[in-house]
Amino acid sequence: MTDVAENSSALRLKRRVRVRLGMSGSIHLLAAQIGDWTWETVACLCHADVLSARNEAGAPTYLAFYHIRVRGGLALHSGSMRPGDRLVVAATCFRQGPMSVLTAHRIERDGSGDSEGSLRVVDDSPPNAVELYERPRENAMYVETFNHWIARSSPDSNSDLVKSAPPEFTTDHLPELPAAYDLRSTFLRARTKHTFHDPDDPEYRSSAETVEFEYPVDVVRDLNGVGLLYFASYLSLTDKAAHALWRRQGRSNRDFLDRIVLDRQISYLRNADLDSTLVLSARTRTHVTDLGREVVDVLIRDRDSGYVLAVSTLHTLNPPQEKSCPNL
Amino acid sequence: MTDVAENSSALRLKRRVRVRLGMSGSIHLLAAQIGDWTWETVACLCHADVLSARNEAGAPTYLAFYHIRVRGGLALHSGSMRPGDRLVVAATCFRQGPMSVLTAHRIERDGSGDSEGSLRVVDDSPPNAVELYERPRENAMYVETFNHWIARSSPDSNSDLVKSAPPEFTTDHLPELPAAYDLRSTFLRARTKHTFHDPDDPEYRSSAETVEFEYPVDVVRDLNGVGLLYFASYLSLTDKAAHALWRRQGRSNRDFLDRIVLDRQISYLRNADLDSTLVLSARTRTHVTDLGREVVDVLIRDRDSGYVLAVSTLHTLNPPQEKSCPNL
Repeated sequence: MTDVAENSSALRLKRRVRVRLGMSGSIHLLAAQIGDWTWETVACLCHADVLSARNEAGAPTYLAFYHIRVRGGLALHSGSMRPGDRLVVAATCFRQGPMSVLTAHRIERDGSGDSEGSLRVVDDSPPNAVELYERPRENAMYVETFNHWIARSSPDSNSDLVKSAPPEFTTDHLPELPAAYDLRSTFLRARTKHTFHDPDDPEYRSSAETVEFEYPVDVVRDLNGVGLLYFASYLSLTDKAAHALWRRQGRSNRDFLDRIVLDRQISYLRNADLDSTLVLSARTRTHVTDLGREVVDVLIRDRDSGYVLAVSTLHTLNPPQEKSCPNL
Repeated sequence: MTDVAENSSALRLKRRVRVRLGMSGSIHLLAAQIGDWTWETVACLCHADVLSARNEAGAPTYLAFYHIRVRGGLALHSGSMRPGDRLVVAATCFRQGPMSVLTAHRIERDGSGDSEGSLRVVDDSPPNAVELYERPRENAMYVETFNHWIARSSPDSNSDLVKSAPPEFTTDHLPELPAAYDLRSTFLRARTKHTFHDPDDPEYRSSAETVEFEYPVDVVRDLNGVGLLYFASYLSLTDKAAHALWRRQGRSNRDFLDRIVLDRQISYLRNADLDSTLVLSARTRTHVTDLGREVVDVLIRDRDSGYVLAVSTLHTLNPPQEKSCPNL
């Protein structure tokens, strides 16, 4: 049941995985696993000991998550993995300057001709930019993580983090992402518009209902092993906001779990201290013709400073609503 | 960074592990990892495909967690693992009837002579009953999980679970636990007294303050990959109740994170449906001479049925309190 990782060349890492209980059931656990895959991939491809990296001054430095995108489809999405499922994961990294790196994972079911009926994955070469952004494989799920190295500027605070890479971190040998796919304009739009989806898209109509509520950082669940707000926790908080709005709209917990998140993007702008109270807010837009398709925008802010900590957008495919049909 | 698992004989499983970010920082993530180690150990030693087991009727059956005990010390405890730490984990199983199995993990730091100064683990034979209950190694952490096989008696409910093992599950070859260490009397006492620590122990004095609050099941974080309330979530809920009491007593979040949980036991009595509201309650007893030592008892109940879902007791070593000293 152990993952099999294989460094077949200097530019790829391939794994055959059986889904463990501890990486399924919630986006939190799945993200924790994928985050570890990113760290492992960067350690392997960029020659840095990600688990205990230090900068030139000897201070600990962390390969923080700045942006994550998770895209799935009906065949495989973040909510459809079950313990025991067999997956093939092919990962690679792209150059993003001296302090950053983009890691892309293609995740596919590996049926091995068993009862699930999915085929054995034949081509497990890692995804390139054209596959990622133009011609994704139909049944695959893709996860992109954009990471940069950060260190605390003061030992007891999570507020003022500065960029700082370990000296051994090298990305010169990695492929560059063609300018057409540059992510920085995406990040800039999210930071300024607070959404990853065109705010003026005529195909979607805003729902009147929104939620906004305070959320004190959960010291039991939200921190990571170095005392920062864990990147996976932000994904849980995004879903908590989306869930609160869902329930306010009179929809059921069962349907929330049965919805399919086709696309999830999040940009991490700031971290938070453990005594912080956050403000989570969510709003939705519904597709004008296909009412089962929604865009959910979530904002995570720090209550006291007002700073935006994260911007996230989900594209979901929702189960059909039970409608009251008075004429029947 | 990948775990190395080694089935050195039919009765043990040994791993050399570097702590991943995704298994540290919260009891939830650590328990998720240890639970996966238990499942992997049972799969290996008891010849069952734990990740996709089915009973003789062909229905899915799960190796559920019925009781967990986590014991640590100053050298290594559940809150002291940091990403990159090197561990040696030696695991074995004990026979517990046809539907159950006890798995014991000994976890030790594996310094490899590096800067942490801890020594390389020499004897990595798995723990036996005498070591577990009479002479534990001083710097080791021990995790015992008592599991039994359960299946749903109705497909949409988590309330009525029945015992049901897959036919290939075999434990005849495993060592038995000597009667002196039988766990069932411990379980019975916890179920009836709602604590794992002698309620009449004169060395501890009850604190007047208690907490009790409602907690709707968190559909974003609490469920596992088969739709049951995840065993690791119960540990988070235990800590949430302990944390609420801690804060009511005027203590800080920082001190809560700095406390050491020396011993944590939990018995799982029932599961819950996703629309359930739970009631979490906690009370503490303080050692009469060493005020930094506490026993915390937590009860998790279902609000509507009143059923007890779990009983947990923590022994903690708390950081020194800042006292107001008016005479100084």
